[in-house]
Amino acid sequence: MMIRVLGSAAGGGFPQWNCNCRNCADVRAGKPGFKARTQSSLAVSADGTNWVLLNASPDLRQQINETPQLGSAASGALRNSPIKAAVVTNGDVDHVTGLINLREAQPFSVYGSKRVMDTLAANSIFNVLAGGVVARHDLPMNQPIAIEGPDGPTGITIEAFDVPGKVALYLEDASKGGNFGSKSGDTIGLKVSAPATGKAFFYVPGCAELDPPLRQRLQGAPLVFFDGTLYTDDEMLQQGLMPKTGARMGHISISGPEGSIAAFKDLDVAKKIYVHINNSNPVLNDNSPERKATEQAGWDVGYDGMEVRL
Amino acid sequence: MMIRVLGSAAGGGFPQWNCNCRNCADVRAGKPGFKARTQSSLAVSADGTNWVLLNASPDLRQQINETPQLGSAASGALRNSPIKAAVVTNGDVDHVTGLINLREAQPFSVYGSKRVMDTLAANSIFNVLAGGVVARHDLPMNQPIAIEGPDGPTGITIEAFDVPGKVALYLEDASKGGNFGSKSGDTIGLKVSAPATGKAFFYVPGCAELDPPLRQRLQGAPLVFFDGTLYTDDEMLQQGLMPKTGARMGHISISGPEGSIAAFKDLDVAKKIYVHINNSNPVLNDNSPERKATEQAGWDVGYDGMEVRL
Repeated sequence: MMIRVLGSAAGGGFPQWNCNCRNCADVRAGKPGFKARTQSSLAVSADGTNWVLLNASPDLRQQINETPQLGSAASGALRNSPIKAAVVTNGDVDHVTGLINLREAQPFSVYGSKRVMDTLAANSIFNVLAGGVVARHDLPMNQPIAIEGPDGPTGITIEAFDVPGKVALYLEDASKGGNFGSKSGDTIGLKVSAPATGKAFFYVPGCAELDPPLRQRLQGAPLVFFDGTLYTDDEMLQQGLMPKTGARMGHISISGPEGSIAAFKDLDVAKKIYVHINNSNPVLNDNSPERKATEQAGWDVGYDGMEVRL
Repeated sequence: MMIRVLGSAAGGGFPQWNCNCRNCADVRAGKPGFKARTQSSLAVSADGTNWVLLNASPDLRQQINETPQLGSAASGALRNSPIKAAVVTNGDVDHVTGLINLREAQPFSVYGSKRVMDTLAANSIFNVLAGGVVARHDLPMNQPIAIEGPDGPTGITIEAFDVPGKVALYLEDASKGGNFGSKSGDTIGLKVSAPATGKAFFYVPGCAELDPPLRQRLQGAPLVFFDGTLYTDDEMLQQGLMPKTGARMGHISISGPEGSIAAFKDLDVAKKIYVHINNSNPVLNDNSPERKATEQAGWDVGYDGMEVRL
């Protein structure tokens, strides 16, 4: 299985259009130790020819242009794409907007939880993915599904599962109390496997907490891509950027006794990679103490173009 | 007035993700004479500090990153942007999707026809532009409006006017006959002026025909950015790409007796620039006979990063 990180940043990307925080100013100035990053997406392939997108970020067109494997093949038909399907893990704009880039009457399949697929259906702009051309599938929870492209199976199987989190920002309903009306399917993780080789990994780009069911699921996994939004729960407040904690946004932090480094400590996961990294996060500075601490704890910090083979 | 072409391509961009036509294959292969182009947008400024976007393409994040003037200022507040407003000319995905990139609780203003603003309101994904932070304004037709940013006037005034065209693809209603339910406000042109200097230009990125009112309006203009989608009405059919003519898509062609070169011939427009250029268009090849004919007819072919001062 080939896995490519198309975008390793959280919503807004790095740098973020309106952000002059330390990190964004430094990456914009080209300071050493800072890499620009596009928004949250992976691509996975069982055969190196047919690819499945895991999330479709607003930067998808740029990501395709920077990834020769995902471009239309010079040896192929007049209209062709190696992208056979896209699976989305929530309805946030950093994970679904890229679908709009996949207009142009090209057959492929979109998979997401019923909650998210209902949101796409309720937003007419997604009708540029014409019915009869682009197949839409509700992804059931806790059930392995062979992901199908327009020409048949992709060789990738996905099992979706609920993880602690919240509904997309633009759908929050404050009248519904502290969880803003969040329901099952609003934030999911994926177990991605290639049955032909028996290899599998987990992709959990948004997660509020490692509760016991999630811990049990990830135990002993060979590879996990995990939510690296913030290093410290209150870093956006501390930096004066936004009055929201990670907890409020549905994201566990990397550090601290409640953080993901601590939570993964006894899970025996062979390779752990942070993705969905917010521009405020000090791990984006290759030379920061926080970056060193993260790496010393056995984690990689994902970057655009990173490739992993399983 | 400073005008910058952020993106000169039509929907899909150049190359287009799933397209292996001659032009797309050549630009992807890096062949001399071919420049990659992002999707349709201009930026305009009366003072070089405050900028107004004319359309917001799906490539907007990349366009901002490639345009230092549009980045968050290193000398500014923690969160700041020179982008004070965005004006959209229709509801097509290549012109409105970029608004979703302007999330992040940054105040600015969006202007569009009531038809288009109603479409944005009906699509909940645009609620990432939070009410109370991002101001939305219906743009009346045939009336000069001073474009306001969050801190006051931008120095740019815009007069919108209907041009022949059609409703956005994803809103087409075949039951409504040949115009697919198109109404006033579905496709507009803009007269963009800087009252401080008295300078003005026209921006008409989508247009089906130069009817007499439009001819009258453009007569004698110092500068027009105009719909350069196709060179020949049936070029997408001829190339085997798609069974739609330019006329069906609401776009006048460049060439031919009914084309825009012929239609502009007696209009005495000082500078004429094609934008919104489809990947099938032979003018994208710097060395094509069609490119030469276009330039010999007094037209420039727009490119990303092109700057014009008035």
